[in-house]
Parts: sequence; structure tokens; C-alpha cells
Amino acid sequence: MSTHRLLARRAGIDTYQQPVVYLRSDGHVCRAEGFQSQAQIEVIAGGRHLLAILHHVDSDWLRQDEIALSEAGWTMLGAANGDEVEVRHPPVLDSLAHLRTKVHGGRLDHAALRALMEDVSHGRVSDIHLAAFVTVCAGGGLDFDEMVALTRAMVDVGERIDWGVSPVMDKHCIGGLPGNRTSLLVVPIVAACGVLMPKTSSRAITSAAGTADAMETLAPVDLDLVAMRRVVEREGGCIAWGGATRISPADDMLIRVERPLNLDSEGLLVASILSKKIAVGSQRVLIDLPVGPVAKVRSTAAAELLSRSLMAVGAALGLQVRTQLTDGTQPVGRGIGPALEAMDVMAVLERGSDAPSDLRERAVLLAGEILEMAGRSEPGAGQALARAVLLDGRALAKFIAICEAQGGLRVPPRAAHAHEVPAPAAGVVSAIDTRLLARAAKLAGAPRDAAAGATMHVRLHESVDLGQPLFTLHAESLGALQYALSFVRSQLPVVHIDAQP
Amino acid sequence: MSTHRLLARRAGIDTYQQPVVYLRSDGHVCRAEGFQSQAQIEVIAGGRHLLAILHHVDSDWLRQDEIALSEAGWTMLGAANGDEVEVRHPPVLDSLAHLRTKVHGGRLDHAALRALMEDVSHGRVSDIHLAAFVTVCAGGGLDFDEMVALTRAMVDVGERIDWGVSPVMDKHCIGGLPGNRTSLLVVPIVAACGVLMPKTSSRAITSAAGTADAMETLAPVDLDLVAMRRVVEREGGCIAWGGATRISPADDMLIRVERPLNLDSEGLLVASILSKKIAVGSQRVLIDLPVGPVAKVRSTAAAELLSRSLMAVGAALGLQVRTQLTDGTQPVGRGIGPALEAMDVMAVLERGSDAPSDLRERAVLLAGEILEMAGRSEPGAGQALARAVLLDGRALAKFIAICEAQGGLRVPPRAAHAHEVPAPAAGVVSAIDTRLLARAAKLAGAPRDAAAGATMHVRLHESVDLGQPLFTLHAESLGALQYALSFVRSQLPVVHIDAQP
Repeated sequence: MSTHRLLARRAGIDTYQQPVVYLRSDGHVCRAEGFQSQAQIEVIAGGRHLLAILHHVDSDWLRQDEIALSEAGWTMLGAANGDEVEVRHPPVLDSLAHLRTKVHGGRLDHAALRALMEDVSHGRVSDIHLAAFVTVCAGGGLDFDEMVALTRAMVDVGERIDWGVSPVMDKHCIGGLPGNRTSLLVVPIVAACGVLMPKTSSRAITSAAGTADAMETLAPVDLDLVAMRRVVEREGGCIAWGGATRISPADDMLIRVERPLNLDSEGLLVASILSKKIAVGSQRVLIDLPVGPVAKVRSTAAAELLSRSLMAVGAALGLQVRTQLTDGTQPVGRGIGPALEAMDVMAVLERGSDAPSDLRERAVLLAGEILEMAGRSEPGAGQALARAVLLDGRALAKFIAICEAQGGLRVPPRAAHAHEVPAPAAGVVSAIDTRLLARAAKLAGAPRDAAAGATMHVRLHESVDLGQPLFTLHAESLGALQYALSFVRSQLPVVHIDAQP
Repeated sequence: MSTHRLLARRAGIDTYQQPVVYLRSDGHVCRAEGFQSQAQIEVIAGGRHLLAILHHVDSDWLRQDEIALSEAGWTMLGAANGDEVEVRHPPVLDSLAHLRTKVHGGRLDHAALRALMEDVSHGRVSDIHLAAFVTVCAGGGLDFDEMVALTRAMVDVGERIDWGVSPVMDKHCIGGLPGNRTSLLVVPIVAACGVLMPKTSSRAITSAAGTADAMETLAPVDLDLVAMRRVVEREGGCIAWGGATRISPADDMLIRVERPLNLDSEGLLVASILSKKIAVGSQRVLIDLPVGPVAKVRSTAAAELLSRSLMAVGAALGLQVRTQLTDGTQPVGRGIGPALEAMDVMAVLERGSDAPSDLRERAVLLAGEILEMAGRSEPGAGQALARAVLLDGRALAKFIAICEAQGGLRVPPRAAHAHEVPAPAAGVVSAIDTRLLARAAKLAGAPRDAAAGATMHVRLHESVDLGQPLFTLHAESLGALQYALSFVRSQLPVVHIDAQP
């Protein structure tokens, strides 16, 4: 296969996570290789390989001997202006045959899923093929054996950590409940009790904020393995973004497509959660499953089915999993969005009088359970220990220490624009549509705009007056604020109010 | 919803069929609206609406008051340099809820599919959502009622033609068999017999050439409805690209994603074929179903199932459908690729001694059946009439007249580079993998490079000597030629040769 040398150049074009390269359509390389627009091409520089989408340029800003890279491509390739890079046709992807097999109703074994995840993790699979894979895995698209095989495949194609000690604790929330930011409380409580808890989190998939998004407004989360190990050795815990490591890297590529598709899949959910936990060296994991009418899990029965899959797949791979069903009928705390949720966390840690008690109680419940799983507390005594550590300030001290170890404590940003949404009638709050709320927060800019989102002013069963503020939308631009507001106004009420009898 | 005015500018960047617009990330519009990279935005100029993907620019080639458009966007919007255009957030797509319903196992009715196709046809649905829809429709993903509803929905969202006469005949081949370019022969035969046959065709989906691709090497095929009507009124037939009209426009958007995904779907196939036929005003259609081990339909049983769906969905929508099962075990004629297949067609029409007889016989079979369906021949007499019209030159004269009416007869291009693939051993040709052949032709550049592809030198059951040429690959660039060759060499033999006993 022939290769061609070109001079690298930063295009100054941001294509988000999809790397794009630009070549002159009338240049030697495109003519010789038959490179067509929107084709995938392989770019090589300094031993690094990048698969990128090609866009043809027919304009003087690019020379025929140059290749321009979008921001994502530039970062991934790590080139400097004027570096020599090679380009060539990418190898034909045999793993896509497995994808077709699955789409047409076949089942995939570990070898097939590993081949597919290997290609996915190296960015060789295009977005539309990723979308097809996510779609075919949606709902119950993967059976038990496939879930085990996919989880193992995702672990296999990335790095693994061995902490050399036992137990290594972890927690996870399956999400779908705005404001449920307990990890930022549980990690410092557990670590303050001398139990190891190296937590990696993902960014938001279908929600307005992931744990990593919220934590990032308080401290850097882009830790590589070396940095993570240093933080954990010093403080006994961390809250890092898993995607900055090569831990289950295929998962992050899938998330890029899952986010706009807004589809949930039991198999992808189980594999995503457990592959990260196994790769990061966790041994015992507590998983929080909020149950509510519009949460990710809608009924206790569904939560119990998912629990069984998580525990069984975990057991098949040597990971002890426990689950905790929690209330998912309304947002937790007040904030929805990275910075707004971080502010709630700080209020709980600082034991302010206005700290959201529901967030605190959930953190105490989960931390107590983890302390018991770890053998640090007798059965039944975990919550009391967790509460004591939170109330005497040790959790706050530990959290600050972790933030400093991760690169320094930050103050969360505040949005430039806010708008209160008033009650259209007096009555009692009978339901809160957390899904619509999350969508409004996303339309307002969350999670990419860290300060954007919503703050709740009412909770279920509270009485409200006509015109009383129900929630406030926050956005960095007036356009995004109006966009979110027009969505809220076009929907059924986000907050349902029953007239009082 | 607020809008902003910017000055249009042609970016000189070719992003193939996906429109992309470029805005300065530090400009007023992006800051005010919170437009993020890879977001969809709506662009409005002169009453036309375009949905495009946004790429941020942070470079001096673009001013803050400008919006640059990729070639696809530029053509779709029809703007001129310096025109004032408006940009805004696109409306939230309610139809995507239907997509999620379907992914999660629900069924879609006509209203849901119509809403989805309406958004698809206007380019409002992103490629990854299109990929999810194609995936969920793959295989037998749509039931009978959904096939009828989807077909009707695809017709509804486009234009329809009424020819004001009866019968209006049509034919279609489901494809999957390289070189099966019978439409270019059947249309002139049938039209020469005085029967109306206004044929629209698609470009290649998963094959190396579609009928429209092959025809385009002989005459223009981008006819709008007015031009098509003029050609048909003058000559009684045409061979046009359906995508240049607004006939079943959603289908063309789906094909954009189906092509790289390389997935087949019974429901999408039925809806794609029949919606085009109904919208174009056809009343009786003959559908060619080639059956072979690696053809689109693998067995007679599968072909009969598909036949039943095509006839039943057609009947539910007032279209008479007949099907014809044909041999799909080896390529038809010699050429594979737009220009190479067109040359075979011309050889048959010109009655040269080297004309491929298999292509001729298939065309006679299908044309004869259509002449009988139209009542132009008695049952059993159609083939004799078709053969007479072909052999006495009336079909050639009619084909030339149709090409002239469509804009002028052309000479198909020849590729710059060719390479013969020799037999690795002596023996008898026992199988030809038409799927690998088509893939090699595509890697060589077909159908985008019209001259690229392959020519076959052997047929099933023929004896070959060691080193005798089996087929020749043709490409416009040495790179593409090497790419196709390295694929051929890495695969199981494309042409299987059994040692002679």
C-alpha cells in the first residue's frame, strides 16, 4: 500500500470529537490515491496513527503539499505545524462483518466483539457504523453471554490498573436522575475512613451533567494513569474522568454517538459500567439505581432485572456487585447542570443551613453501604459512620485534599443569563418530569456550557402560589436561553400542579 | 426564536452530500446563540431552508460576519457570494420520538412514519439518526403494515406524476448482481413497441453501479419533472435518475446512509422500490429478483417471500406488481462499473458479434413479460416481439433517440489504469463471488469514478489455463488500483477454480 508525505497544518476548524482532515482535491495525493470526499483516510506522524474523515478543499488557503487537520485530529495526532505526515487508505475493516451479523439477528461471541471494540477504540469505525451498533444493542439487544463478552472485550482493548491491595471499592449511578451527584460526597467520606476508592466517571451521555462534568467545575479531571495513581496513593481516592485514560476506550467512542441518539441499552449500560470498573481495578462496586416514572429505570421490576444482569455479569468476570434502588421521582438537590450540581455538593460538604438534605441523605446511605461492603463497618453501622465523617468536617477536608491533588480546587462558574419559570396556577406539586427538565437544561447549553442548566425551587407535594418561581433556567447566551424556554413552553408542564381541594 | 444575518460565502470545501457550514467561534452569532461545533443549525436564504452541521472556525480566512458553506450546502441553498442569509437553532424534532419507539420494539403507523419521512426528506435528520433508522429496519425489522405505511409516507412527502394514460409500465431489479443492466435495453424495446415506460432509477446503493450511474455515462440523467415529461412525451420512455426530482425524496436521504452501512432491509427495499414507482405514476411493474449464493436474495424461498411482500404492498397501494426470478450465480455481461456496463449495453443494441448474449437474453425475457403485462402481446408472444425489435435495430434507434432527448448521447469514459488478475491454477471455474467482485470494483473507484470497475474474462463452468486472465481491474488512479488489488489478493479467491479430474 503506497503512502504519501505532506506537511501538517492546523486548520483552525473545530469539528468536535470527529477528526477531519483537509486536502486539495486537485493535489497529487488525492488524484494518485483516488481519495474521495467523506472517505476515511489514515494519517501517520511520529508513530501515531489517526483515522480521519477527508474533506476536499478547492481554495487557496491550503497548498497542494499540505494537509490541514481539525482540532480533534490535531490533538490526537500530536503534530506540529510543518511536520511531515504520511497519508494512505485505511485497511479494510473485517470487524464490520460482525456488525452486519448482529444487525441481521446473529449473536456475537467474545472474539467478534473484541475485534469490533479494537477497531472502535482506535477510531477506525465511522459514526454511522457506531450508530448502527448502538441501535442494535438498544433495549435488550444483547443477551447475557453477549453482555459478558462485550464487557470483557471492552476491558481487553484498553489499559488495566492493579492497585496491589484489597479491597478496592467503587460506586456508580446508572444516571437518568438530574442532580444525583452523590459520588462527589461518597468518595471523600469513604476515603476519609481509610478505604481505597479510586473513582473514574464518564461525562454525560443523555443527561445534563455527568459526574466528571460536575467534578471538572471543582478540579481538573483529565488525569492519566500516572496522575491518578499519585492522587490515590496520597489521598486514598480520586474523582477522575475515565476517558482521559485508556480505560475501556471503546466505551467513550460509543458514548459520542449514544449522546445524540439518546437511546438506552441494557447491554451497553452493563458493559459500559462494568468494563470501566474492572479495568480500573475495582473489586467491589455499589450501583445506585434510581427508579421513577421518567428515570432511566421506570419500575422496581425493571430495576431488579437490571440488578440481576449487573450482578451476574460482574460475577462472571470476578467483580462483586451490589445494587441500591433509590427514589427517582424528582431531581436530587437543586442544581441541574455541571456547575449548579457542584454547588449543591459543596453546600452539603460545608454543612450550610441551606444544603440540600435529600442529596446528603442519599450520600450517607450509599457511603454507609460501601463501608459495610468493605468490612470497615459492622453490618448496619455503616450509615452512622458515614454521617459522622460528613458532619465533623473530615469529608470536606478530604474532598479539598483530593481536589488539590488532582490539580487544585476551583470555583464553579456562574451563567451569564437566567430566567425564572413561574407557576401557571396555585396548587400542589404533583409530579416533576425530570426528563423534560434535563432536556431543557441541555438545550440551555449543559453540559458543554458548564454553568448552564436549571435550579429547582420546589419539590414534590409542596404548595405553590400562582406566579411563584418553579425553576430557573441558566445559560451562557441569550439564544440558548430562549431556545430552552421555547422548548419548556411548547411541552406539557414540566412541573405538574394539582389545584388544591 | 431569534435569527441572525450573515453574508454567504462559498467555502470551497467538498463534504460530499452532508452540508456543512462554517462560522467563527468568536463571532457574535455563535456567542449569542450558543451554537456549538457539530450542532445542527438552520440556514435560510431566499425562502430556502437548509439544515447543516456547524464547524467552528478560528482562523482568518473567515470573517466574523460571514458564513461559509460547503459545496453540498452551497448547491442546496442556491445562494451567491455576499447574499444575506439568516441562521437560527433548528426546531426540536418531535419525529425522533417515533424513531426511539421503533428502536425499543414499538410499531410505527402511517402518521409516525410520515412525520419521520417529512423530516428526513427535508434533511433535518442527522446521519447518525438515519443510521439508527436504517439499522432498525434491517432484515425483517418492518412488518407488513409498516411496509405499507412507510411506502405511502415516502410517496406523500414528495412529488407525484400523473401521465394521464394507461397503462404506464415500469421495471426494477432489486440489484446485488453486477452487470445486470437490463433497464437500458428493456426501456427502448418496450418504448419502440409504443408502450409508455418512464423509468427512474437510483444510483448504486451497495453495488458498483446503479442504472442511473451506467446511463449517465451515455446521456444526462439529472432530469427534473418537466424535462422527464418532455422526453417521455416525445419518445415514450426515459431512463432518468429519480433523485434529481422530488420523487420519494426521503429514499435518497436514506440511501446516503445505507450505502456505507451496507445493510439490506426487506422493508426499506420494498418501500424504496414501490414508493418511487407509485410516485412516478407507474401502474404495472415487473421486478427482477436475481437469486444466487452471494446475491441480494440467496434462495428461491427468500425470493418468493420477498415477491409476496412486493405484490401485497403494491396491491394495498393500487400498484400491480409481478416478479421474475432470474439466475444470480455470476455477473451478467462482462463489465462491472458504470461505463463498463454501458459498453455491454451498447454492444447488445448494436448487435456486435462480441455482444454478451446473457445480457441480451435477460433483456428479452423481461421486455417480453412487460409487453404481455401491458396487453401489447398475447400471453407467450412477448419475447418474440421483444427479440424482433432488438434484432431489427428499432431498439437501438429508440435508445439513441431517448439519449438525444435527455440531452445528447455520450461515449462512456475509459479508465487510465488497468490490471489483469490471472488464474492461479488450471482447471474449471466452479464459482464466482459476485459480492467480492463488486467490492473490488468499488475499491477501484466505482461508481464515483465512472470508468472504474472490473471486466470479466471467464464464466462459470469454463476451463482456464494457469495464468489466463480471469478479470481485469480498471481505475482512474494507481492508488485506487493498488487498493482494489490488495483487497483481491487478501481475500479467498474471487473466482474459484477446481482442478480438472
